[in-house]
Amino acid sequence: MRPSGRNLSQMRPISIETGVMRHAEGSCLIRCGNTHVLCSASIEDNPPRFLKGSGLGWVTAEYGMLPRATNTRNRREAAQGKQSGRTQEIQRLIGRSLRAGIDRVALGERQITVDCDVIQADGGTRCASITGGWVALRLAVNKLLGAGVLTSDPIVDHVAAVSCGIYAGQTVVDLDYAEDSEAGTDGNFVMTGAGRMIEVQMSAEGATFSRDEMGQLVDLAEAGVAELVAAQKAALE
Amino acid sequence: MRPSGRNLSQMRPISIETGVMRHAEGSCLIRCGNTHVLCSASIEDNPPRFLKGSGLGWVTAEYGMLPRATNTRNRREAAQGKQSGRTQEIQRLIGRSLRAGIDRVALGERQITVDCDVIQADGGTRCASITGGWVALRLAVNKLLGAGVLTSDPIVDHVAAVSCGIYAGQTVVDLDYAEDSEAGTDGNFVMTGAGRMIEVQMSAEGATFSRDEMGQLVDLAEAGVAELVAAQKAALE
Amino acid sequence: MRPSGRNLSQMRPISIETGVMRHAEGSCLIRCGNTHVLCSASIEDNPPRFLKGSGLGWVTAEYGMLPRATNTRNRREAAQGKQSGRTQEIQRLIGRSLRAGIDRVALGERQITVDCDVIQADGGTRCASITGGWVALRLAVNKLLGAGVLTSDPIVDHVAAVSCGIYAGQTVVDLDYAEDSEAGTDGNFVMTGAGRMIEVQMSAEGATFSRDEMGQLVDLAEAGVAELVAAQKAALE
Amino acid sequence: MRPSGRNLSQMRPISIETGVMRHAEGSCLIRCGNTHVLCSASIEDNPPRFLKGSGLGWVTAEYGMLPRATNTRNRREAAQGKQSGRTQEIQRLIGRSLRAGIDRVALGERQITVDCDVIQADGGTRCASITGGWVALRLAVNKLLGAGVLTSDPIVDHVAAVSCGIYAGQTVVDLDYAEDSEAGTDGNFVMTGAGRMIEVQMSAEGATFSRDEMGQLVDLAEAGVAELVAAQKAALE
Amino acid sequence: MRPSGRNLSQMRPISIETGVMRHAEGSCLIRCGNTHVLCSASIEDNPPRFLKGSGLGWVTAEYGMLPRATNTRNRREAAQGKQSGRTQEIQRLIGRSLRAGIDRVALGERQITVDCDVIQADGGTRCASITGGWVALRLAVNKLLGAGVLTSDPIVDHVAAVSCGIYAGQTVVDLDYAEDSEAGTDGNFVMTGAGRMIEVQMSAEGATFSRDEMGQLVDLAEAGVAELVAAQKAALE
Amino acid sequence: MRPSGRNLSQMRPISIETGVMRHAEGSCLIRCGNTHVLCSASIEDNPPRFLKGSGLGWVTAEYGMLPRATNTRNRREAAQGKQSGRTQEIQRLIGRSLRAGIDRVALGERQITVDCDVIQADGGTRCASITGGWVALRLAVNKLLGAGVLTSDPIVDHVAAVSCGIYAGQTVVDLDYAEDSEAGTDGNFVMTGAGRMIEVQMSAEGATFSRDEMGQLVDLAEAGVAELVAAQKAALE
Repeated sequence: MRPSGRNLSQMRPISIETGVMRHAEGSCLIRCGNTHVLCSASIEDNPPRFLKGSGLGWVTAEYGMLPRATNTRNRREAAQGKQSGRTQEIQRLIGRSLRAGIDRVALGERQITVDCDVIQADGGTRCASITGGWVALRLAVNKLLGAGVLTSDPIVDHVAAVSCGIYAGQTVVDLDYAEDSEAGTDGNFVMTGAGRMIEVQMSAEGATFSRDEMGQLVDLAEAGVAELVAAQKAALE
Repeated sequence: MRPSGRNLSQMRPISIETGVMRHAEGSCLIRCGNTHVLCSASIEDNPPRFLKGSGLGWVTAEYGMLPRATNTRNRREAAQGKQSGRTQEIQRLIGRSLRAGIDRVALGERQITVDCDVIQADGGTRCASITGGWVALRLAVNKLLGAGVLTSDPIVDHVAAVSCGIYAGQTVVDLDYAEDSEAGTDGNFVMTGAGRMIEVQMSAEGATFSRDEMGQLVDLAEAGVAELVAAQKAALE
Repeated sequence: MRPSGRNLSQMRPISIETGVMRHAEGSCLIRCGNTHVLCSASIEDNPPRFLKGSGLGWVTAEYGMLPRATNTRNRREAAQGKQSGRTQEIQRLIGRSLRAGIDRVALGERQITVDCDVIQADGGTRCASITGGWVALRLAVNKLLGAGVLTSDPIVDHVAAVSCGIYAGQTVVDLDYAEDSEAGTDGNFVMTGAGRMIEVQMSAEGATFSRDEMGQLVDLAEAGVAELVAAQKAALE
Repeated sequence: MRPSGRNLSQMRPISIETGVMRHAEGSCLIRCGNTHVLCSASIEDNPPRFLKGSGLGWVTAEYGMLPRATNTRNRREAAQGKQSGRTQEIQRLIGRSLRAGIDRVALGERQITVDCDVIQADGGTRCASITGGWVALRLAVNKLLGAGVLTSDPIVDHVAAVSCGIYAGQTVVDLDYAEDSEAGTDGNFVMTGAGRMIEVQMSAEGATFSRDEMGQLVDLAEAGVAELVAAQKAALE
Repeated sequence: MRPSGRNLSQMRPISIETGVMRHAEGSCLIRCGNTHVLCSASIEDNPPRFLKGSGLGWVTAEYGMLPRATNTRNRREAAQGKQSGRTQEIQRLIGRSLRAGIDRVALGERQITVDCDVIQADGGTRCASITGGWVALRLAVNKLLGAGVLTSDPIVDHVAAVSCGIYAGQTVVDLDYAEDSEAGTDGNFVMTGAGRMIEVQMSAEGATFSRDEMGQLVDLAEAGVAELVAAQKAALE
Repeated sequence: MRPSGRNLSQMRPISIETGVMRHAEGSCLIRCGNTHVLCSASIEDNPPRFLKGSGLGWVTAEYGMLPRATNTRNRREAAQGKQSGRTQEIQRLIGRSLRAGIDRVALGERQITVDCDVIQADGGTRCASITGGWVALRLAVNKLLGAGVLTSDPIVDHVAAVSCGIYAGQTVVDLDYAEDSEAGTDGNFVMTGAGRMIEVQMSAEGATFSRDEMGQLVDLAEAGVAELVAAQKAALE
């Protein structure tokens, strides 16, 4: 009954390839089905101005999409002269999510910028960016630990994200574009490796949902994030 | 234990004054404690281009804040030459929320723009904007019904919003600025008059939350929204 | 013969309510008939860069208008990405006018920013902004004097402004929108409490005016400003 | 006593050279002492959208300054990405002034754009732009009359402008930069060939002026504009 | 003597992988050593406005670089709000080059946009973009031919580009970043499969070059482009 | 056979008038036929930030065009809010070209900005800007030498530029607008007084050119630049 033929609780195939950008301190290409995102983590020793002297570090994120990542070509944001509201909303979400998994004291006064660029889009790009972005961040931090710049690990836990929604009256996990564009309600769930919640966003456009449906979506999300965390672990081995 | 001395489940005093802007088709000044937002609804017979010929209407929203609505002066967005990511995120949320309470076929090919301008800020401005914005929208639609332009009411139900969060380890409703700036987790809950969910956003910065805490926050939100809906009804009588 | 039924030399009812914005060092809501402007004064201890080390203070102003302050909705300047030429012209005028009533040595190296936001417009918004902006400035300076930060008063005199114009062939004071949009000549007059001139702007669009008419407009303005100064005094008592 | 050695009522030497830009329908180079402005008038058969079907014409103006027109180099506005408030204020003034001398019905549904570019600046650039801009406009209209496109002359009268101010306590005409930067009060006066007023702007920065001084400034302006109108006539012969 | 150990006339290894972006009408990933560019071609049936009714087609290009394609992170152009002069110069070059190989009558009134996004940079990104962009264009045109939308092939010949320069006093082909940043003279040569010239750009920064050296650079370029054309042919088989 | 009746190798009349802008350290008005460019050189003792402490100087350029320099009026870039890609490409070329004739060590830590503003355009504006810009630069450096600020001359050689192209199947020098808009191939050649190459740009739009034609274009350019250098020398005597 799902356009892809998947079960209601079936994730798309996940692949995470590390070390794909030779200049970045950490990088990966994450593929969730036909959604492909290139993630890199860049370490800057100069923290942003508001942190000077605080002893705290910062993790921030930027998000972009190639013009032809989508079915019809989108205008290039650099050519339009600004990032859309959607782009800003997404990159703020990625940054907040990754910071929730970091001990900013242990990171010290430096900034890590995680760039997530969507090469191909088929729904769920913000979730893939968080899951892949965390892998790039993990690799960059490993470099700092390996070089002895950091002596204790500032990464507290895994961070991963999945979308769930109500499609054709049923709760489903990991929506692809065909589902996403039809779903009356959809949500994004960011969680830790231990299953604690970082961010929950459920949204109905032209419909509403019950508290019971909300519970079912969270159930699906918990199982989905567990699969993603396993994929992160496998990629890092 | 709350800075304001309120109980954990106690809302701030709510006041909604209607008809405060003589030119607007609908308007109100909503006060949630020291958060004051001026809301207006403007009817435009020309729908946005993407609706031409569809027979469907549109509700959209814009959000702003006076430079000295806050404790220290913020730079004016018009002078900076762009709306911040935060502003865009908020106005997208208000628009989505109000559309969830509208029958777009019944509205017909017209657009209603709801402007929410924060005169004074003390936490919870986006929620107050949704609650007050709905009143302005209701009044503008009443005008269309009264003039016979519309014959069936496109408004399906009330829409109202409240914030909840975890402050000093306890779940509290309707956070003011003192609480909001300290809360490890906070969320915004948009619901209908019938108690169905439109939008749920829970976010942890530098912390995480459990599924159990999530449930408590939703409980608080359901009670808070019920109070707001009652205040909307009283203001419209 | 005036649309409002006023005499040629009759001002609209003036009301100035102080202390309306809890965070600002000085604030008021000025109402000149149906023109309502919210004015706040914000003290910043860091003067602008060009004053560093000069010992001189600065007063500057910013002006805005809510999208639905007017009969039909105007586009929000923050959303358009720039302030219009009209807005910039008005805020430069407000700043120059208020500086003319200030002793910049006595103010010392600090900046006071006066924000004037039009809540409802019915002609004469720039004049109301100057008259109300001066009250906000006065209150902010009182706070500095009260706290002992300043020991001598940098405010030299009242500053107030009124518009006059030629409507239907007759010189009238304090034009409302119905008159302003029809007037062949209109002018703005900024004066001190002692009746000295700060700024005189008379402008004819599609018409011209004689030196004799110019004299009559100044007569009307002198009487009008005297009334406004009296209203400022009353509001501050 | 004036830095240039001129009498209080003495204008700078005026020269107006016509036909200096081969592509423009009308053009001139106006020199008021060391202030040099290149003015062109461009006829566009497409009127701006707000005039479609009205039968009325439009005259508008744009103003610019070469980066090294001034003593120290100014940043190029095109490189900065926006026109300053000062530039916008000036070009609005030029446009309003020129329109006051035009019969928009006789002009018919077309637009004439007058570009005023300051090649060298020594005070009074906006006044020189108006005086020279009118000559360019006159020449462009002559072309339309000569070609039989227009049969009645839409130009009602000459338009010219001069600055006056209070320098070292004395009222003087046609301020150069050395005077302008020191003057406590300065004003711009736009008048017709018949001596009627189009625009009067007097402004005090850090000082005030009396009604009597205002009268003296107007006297000086009337004589100055008469000289400029004579120079316009000579240039067009 | 070259940092990479290559001979003076030795190109870097070339690889062109086609069909890498599922939504695009044509796409490839071109690798010239460590320079990797993702190229896509998008067909739009609506030609740009200036072509309406002309019967002619258009090919245009856009260029971008991921922030961490380079050794240190570059600021994202979308976040900066504009494309740099360098970016605009490059995308204009790509567009001009590809149009030189197209029969615009045979293409008909449609536009093909070629996007070139640098995933990893090591010198020569604009040349790789042209060479890879042509392959994407070829594939998109093949789709139009295959679908019978076009009946005669609008592609006249291959287009490919290589850089040459004077490094450490010697003329070398296909400069990598280490060479490019040190070269006194460098040039870009765009040619057809038949060896005719489309674009030649030679530039000396802080040095000059002789006509004889110019000849040597062209010799190197002719041989290099021939290798690139062979690689294009191999990739398309 | 050329629209102007010139021989294939005949330049347009050249005139260079120096000292035309009283405030600039160096200036000239260059006329190449009907192409007129006003060039100024401005010395700034503060070098750009990237040179601080390097001991090296910098020469940069900006380019603009008056709106009515052309046959039909162009929109003013300052009003559009950005410089076009073409403008940026041209000013980068002018800057690079002038730097190639400068010893940056001898110049010392200062910046000279060369502004080239096209007053009237008839093809070849970028070449005229380089040729005239060099004269302005030469005059500004003379001022530094005359004042004893510099003791050795940082100018190594003349820099001048000419366009050549293939018009109606024949190679011609110094294209005017009528030729430029029809030419299948056109190029810009920047050379030193000694005849060494600084920049060579040949470009075919919708056509291609042979290596033999390339040689003919360079021959024409060498002779043309020699004439321009002679004109520079004459103007400076």
